Amino acid sequence: MKILVVNAGSSSLKYQLFDMDTQDVLAKGLCERIGIDGRYKYSAAGKEEIKGDYPMPTHADAIKLLTKNLTDPEIGVISSMDEIDAVGHRVLTAGDIYSDSVFIDDTVKKVIRDCIPIGPLHNPANLTGIEACAEVIKDVPQVAVFDTGFHMTMPPKAFLYAIPYRYYEEYRLRKYGFHGTSHRYVSGKAIEMLGNPHAKIVTCHLGNGSSCAAVKDGKVIDTSMGLTPLEGLPMGTRSGNLDPAVLGFIGDHEGKSASEIVTMLNKESGVLGVSGVSSDFRDLEAAANEGNERARIALDMFIYSVRKYIGAYAAAMGGIDAVVFTAGIGENNGRIRAAIMEGLEFLGFELDQEKNLKTREQADVSAPGAKAKTLVIPTNEELVIAMDTMNIVLQRA
Amino acid sequence: MKILVVNAGSSSLKYQLFDMDTQDVLAKGLCERIGIDGRYKYSAAGKEEIKGDYPMPTHADAIKLLTKNLTDPEIGVISSMDEIDAVGHRVLTAGDIYSDSVFIDDTVKKVIRDCIPIGPLHNPANLTGIEACAEVIKDVPQVAVFDTGFHMTMPPKAFLYAIPYRYYEEYRLRKYGFHGTSHRYVSGKAIEMLGNPHAKIVTCHLGNGSSCAAVKDGKVIDTSMGLTPLEGLPMGTRSGNLDPAVLGFIGDHEGKSASEIVTMLNKESGVLGVSGVSSDFRDLEAAANEGNERARIALDMFIYSVRKYIGAYAAAMGGIDAVVFTAGIGENNGRIRAAIMEGLEFLGFELDQEKNLKTREQADVSAPGAKAKTLVIPTNEELVIAMDTMNIVLQRA
Repeated sequence: MKILVVNAGSSSLKYQLFDMDTQDVLAKGLCERIGIDGRYKYSAAGKEEIKGDYPMPTHADAIKLLTKNLTDPEIGVISSMDEIDAVGHRVLTAGDIYSDSVFIDDTVKKVIRDCIPIGPLHNPANLTGIEACAEVIKDVPQVAVFDTGFHMTMPPKAFLYAIPYRYYEEYRLRKYGFHGTSHRYVSGKAIEMLGNPHAKIVTCHLGNGSSCAAVKDGKVIDTSMGLTPLEGLPMGTRSGNLDPAVLGFIGDHEGKSASEIVTMLNKESGVLGVSGVSSDFRDLEAAANEGNERARIALDMFIYSVRKYIGAYAAAMGGIDAVVFTAGIGENNGRIRAAIMEGLEFLGFELDQEKNLKTREQADVSAPGAKAKTLVIPTNEELVIAMDTMNIVLQRA
Repeated sequence: MKILVVNAGSSSLKYQLFDMDTQDVLAKGLCERIGIDGRYKYSAAGKEEIKGDYPMPTHADAIKLLTKNLTDPEIGVISSMDEIDAVGHRVLTAGDIYSDSVFIDDTVKKVIRDCIPIGPLHNPANLTGIEACAEVIKDVPQVAVFDTGFHMTMPPKAFLYAIPYRYYEEYRLRKYGFHGTSHRYVSGKAIEMLGNPHAKIVTCHLGNGSSCAAVKDGKVIDTSMGLTPLEGLPMGTRSGNLDPAVLGFIGDHEGKSASEIVTMLNKESGVLGVSGVSSDFRDLEAAANEGNERARIALDMFIYSVRKYIGAYAAAMGGIDAVVFTAGIGENNGRIRAAIMEGLEFLGFELDQEKNLKTREQADVSAPGAKAKTLVIPTNEELVIAMDTMNIVLQRA
């Protein structure tokens, strides 16, 4: 079975074609600047990447280009789009309507549309991707996998905000959480590695966007992102948590609306805002090593915030068996992993320092005998989407 | 030595007169609706409380009334205001200029005035109280004790927000923390009870306003309130933490400014907003016991948030020796204390359930042999202010 996984943004479209018998990625690509001037990359397994400019006025044009590439006699991997059994779409959110992945029909499309207020940037783009596929790759089953879905097991005490209840009733304003497919994938792998389906795990997806989740018995009980991906940890350019009165203060002193301030908190804040150096943690480390004090503080804030979430979620779960690190920073930066775990010996953690510093692949980097485990697990959100898509198509057959 | 402790609000003035030889409160009172129609209460130790209406156009009139009451031949406790050696004022904040209490002179008054942007409601009222005392009780030394002072030992990684650094440089926009005299008093008592000056303690000041602090080696390393008392735990009417994007969402959907939303988050949110029942935890418990689901959720949110702060601060300190409960809920509500501590056995906590339920006074309510201690310590912010005032007056003599 061959599954195409699509992640459509407002002016971009990322995709991977999976052979589900082997779980191999046959080809992948990225279309950017859709509706602007059009740019693309494409690579098939074992072949050199090609890239270039290509006019793509609409997402349907991007799907036509990927069709052309995938079926190209030279660089393609299939002879016809008929070989594709289904398309799996990454969709930001179906609010609290769907937690599990679903076969896309008109009802599902309506739910995705109805949830635009809580996913104003992503949901319309995701819908555009779905419509473009329906237009170009006719009659192929499509499945939606929701980035918020895995978090839908949170209890009300974790997902409600302490604001007038009518906001929840009228707007479904609540904590949704994001990076759900990633937290799901790595917590599942961790349960396998630990051999304990009831393990209490804190998963740390640390990249340019970062979030933590508390996973107990394989289910999320809390997560750090909220109504939007702004809440929680300080990130590359996002503030994470702060006193909500900060928005009133800035509004009053600088004559900005709440929305304008939120944009600033999303785009000019985080470790970039504090350091003034970069949103990239490699740049920050380099600057800090050269004595840049603000870069050092920005790194420390990030590390300290992750450590506090680990403690908070251990308390929420009544204990902790493992911490999992994943995504760009979590998988590749052993120094930051070590800094986060420093001082958590009282919870039973201890690192194999040398192993931790070197590891970039799936591994237990705990010291021998450590009561609680520190795991590195590369995430694979596309594979989760492909698997869900396959399972739903098989169930319907 | 006799010390008058004054806490001036915008239209109120609370006071206590201490005999510092015995630390006894000789008399105390409250003037309310200053500048409106004037109302007061006064009681001397061992005598019945008197109360009534009394015109008080200004804070100086309130000071004149307290002078009259304190020196009254019948209900008074001193024969002349000359017996008062000094006045100690509760002052919200001197920003990061002063952490320790200070003798009030023109420089100090200027600092309090300069800090009005970060204490817009309280600092002007505190200054009015200082000026009123200077006018009515002439030549008496006055001391300022800052509610944010005890938190000034926080490191930058704890007190900075992950927003553009210029906000800190231009406005001193940062986390200050509040209830400082309370956290200081109860952490000091806890260190005495534990016999360990290096103890790692989480102090939980839980009342209508609530905050937690992480105290290590007698110094605050983190606290839950922020730039203002809105941040942190959900409270009676305050939201505590939420996704900052919630303000953008509400602003866009309801045409409100950031300031208007912050007012709603301060006055209509918290457990009142969620439950729709009350901001008073006794009302909430009664409603929850009668099956009110939203009252139950509001209570659960509060309890769960305190538990997460305990875990987060344990991680921040690299361990935990004790949790201290104080203030209205913390001192009097054993059920809520028990609910907060439930599931924290993995940190070494265990309650003597029966003792905990009954305790309303200073006590260790841990089970015998518990590795980490659960302490109930009634707070006494006024005594802290009186002690600081006495010490500063003695040093200057």
